[in-house]
Amino acid sequence: MFKRRLFTPGPTPVPESVMLRMAEPMIHHRNPEFTEILTRVNRNLQYLFQTAGPVLTLTCSGTGGVESTFVSLFSPGDTVIAVNGGKFGERWVAMPRVFGLNAVEVKVAWGSAPQPAEILAALRAHPEAKAVYLTHSETSTGAATDVRALAALIREHSQALVCVDGITAIGAHEFRFDEWGIDVCVTGSQKGLMIPPGLAFVALSARAVERVRTSTMPRFYLDLRRALAAYEKNDTPWTPAASLIIGVDAALEMIRTEGIEQVWRRHKRMATAVRAGVEALGLKLFSRDASYAVTPVWLPAGVEWKPFNALLKNTYGITVAGGQDEYTGKIFRISHLGYYDELDMVTVIAAVERSLHDCGWKCEPGAGVRAVQRSFMESAS
Amino acid sequence: MFKRRLFTPGPTPVPESVMLRMAEPMIHHRNPEFTEILTRVNRNLQYLFQTAGPVLTLTCSGTGGVESTFVSLFSPGDTVIAVNGGKFGERWVAMPRVFGLNAVEVKVAWGSAPQPAEILAALRAHPEAKAVYLTHSETSTGAATDVRALAALIREHSQALVCVDGITAIGAHEFRFDEWGIDVCVTGSQKGLMIPPGLAFVALSARAVERVRTSTMPRFYLDLRRALAAYEKNDTPWTPAASLIIGVDAALEMIRTEGIEQVWRRHKRMATAVRAGVEALGLKLFSRDASYAVTPVWLPAGVEWKPFNALLKNTYGITVAGGQDEYTGKIFRISHLGYYDELDMVTVIAAVERSLHDCGWKCEPGAGVRAVQRSFMESAS
Repeated sequence: MFKRRLFTPGPTPVPESVMLRMAEPMIHHRNPEFTEILTRVNRNLQYLFQTAGPVLTLTCSGTGGVESTFVSLFSPGDTVIAVNGGKFGERWVAMPRVFGLNAVEVKVAWGSAPQPAEILAALRAHPEAKAVYLTHSETSTGAATDVRALAALIREHSQALVCVDGITAIGAHEFRFDEWGIDVCVTGSQKGLMIPPGLAFVALSARAVERVRTSTMPRFYLDLRRALAAYEKNDTPWTPAASLIIGVDAALEMIRTEGIEQVWRRHKRMATAVRAGVEALGLKLFSRDASYAVTPVWLPAGVEWKPFNALLKNTYGITVAGGQDEYTGKIFRISHLGYYDELDMVTVIAAVERSLHDCGWKCEPGAGVRAVQRSFMESAS
Repeated sequence: MFKRRLFTPGPTPVPESVMLRMAEPMIHHRNPEFTEILTRVNRNLQYLFQTAGPVLTLTCSGTGGVESTFVSLFSPGDTVIAVNGGKFGERWVAMPRVFGLNAVEVKVAWGSAPQPAEILAALRAHPEAKAVYLTHSETSTGAATDVRALAALIREHSQALVCVDGITAIGAHEFRFDEWGIDVCVTGSQKGLMIPPGLAFVALSARAVERVRTSTMPRFYLDLRRALAAYEKNDTPWTPAASLIIGVDAALEMIRTEGIEQVWRRHKRMATAVRAGVEALGLKLFSRDASYAVTPVWLPAGVEWKPFNALLKNTYGITVAGGQDEYTGKIFRISHLGYYDELDMVTVIAAVERSLHDCGWKCEPGAGVRAVQRSFMESAS
């Protein structure tokens, strides 16, 4: 018996019931049956983001979703401040420059989150800034940003829009778009939403909608003005990835049934338990400011990534993510984002423990799974 | 018993075996299993387009696919000639203007294809034109353009790239990218490829690849330079819609098994039979230059679109497409693009005949299906 299990921070596993919904015969995206689905999806996305405003569904990856905000909210020459603390933050600095925006980079070390003083300094140096881009959970490093505190800070000191890359955070971390004063938040389908990749979602505040109306940036496919106009009619401007939207509908029903606060609590519990397990194996965590979506871990001395990963994958059937860029071969990343329960965390740590053991790493057999189990059993659910 | 059947020119029905392949557990898009799939898809897309050059897979709709060519092959101020003979041709005139290109419109009547003299006149008036955009099969009108002849004409008289919107033509009409001297062709997943929407495919000639390298247009998500670099490694620049690519893999295997020339023949036979059926019912065809993908038909006097469509849909379970823009309520469009066989054509005409009858239209019962049947039986397969 050989079972495969996916523990990567996007794509994440798709619930079996959602896969079967997506496998139903195609329906046309301009017919009442589909409008009914999209209407429900639009409403439930508001619940997911905790907003009363529009959440637009685009057919593209998360990168396309973030691009839609750069090309739809600003005008050439505008200044935007962007935090770069990893592979994705780096992209949110490079991308606006391509479109003629003046991107001011706030660089933070990989594995760390930006501090209030760093954001404040950038705002003071650039009072003309039209927006600040924050990455809520940086997938490449597993670092989480205190978006709530920074949003309050930005709102207090400037008129800049608070823009959040919530791609691996939405559905894992507490997030209250309206209450926290967020202006823009983007997520993708293959993350906390538990469906295959191919859709991005963009939540907009009233201030952001106003900016969409005045932006002079050239854009067409990723034009949020067109997306907003279609949204008013529970429609999309271009042919949408309809089967994925049907999947999102099913996934959002699951989230509503569980309750968003319980979804957040579950992710925090899973992240905490995985970290306890990893540390009990004698390994060191990579990030100081830990995300609840993904846990990056330093490979210990004497354990090479390639044989370790080959064991995990080919012997134990577990797919995790490796490190990126300069951390390739140095860290590995265990995802606990999306369709997982507490027992899955015992499973993944069991496989990590056995693969480490097979690589010659010494630790007390069962130490990892015991620590996971204790973490769950000794904390209130 | 109430069965639903889809006869729209995108989305088209998805084969059951393909739906089940897409419903298999998620795999990660940077893992060898997926690279193997994408490598096979890349090779089979070359077969579909009949090219030895690259065919890039983008996560977006067909509109995004066409945008990728405008923003990746030209530079601001460049002139492109675009044929507008329907809703999509109209878009290929509007879109380049948004990006600062000088789009010269060749307007043809809805239902007609551009004539060689019209293209030649535009080329003579605009010798600086960098490209000519043709719509092979205009979905809104069912008119087919003689791409082969026009490509030869354009190549003879200019250096302009021959760019083809093949969105509803690929897989229905004979198309030989290399042999015919095409430079750019775009298609979408929810058409002749028989899978759900969410992917676009862009074939490029060596001349087009060269233009991608020299273009100064700002672009990021839809940048074909990045897509080409990733393609060399059988990869994609951003997270792709992996489940849809797995569907394309299964669909392309079906096309290879049937053989592309037989796929083209089947579509021609189906289109011919449907037209015979429609005319036998006393109805008039909308287009002079008929596409093999979709057949638009004038609603006869006394038959209203709304009750007719309600009968087709709610009584007979058949979804067809209505008219667009000024032809809304005046025509309806029967698709025969993708996963259909000859018996399906009998089915759709049977339902059209019964709905017309229920609307009070007079014709000999069975005349439509008899004509379809005869068309198939009296012509060589």
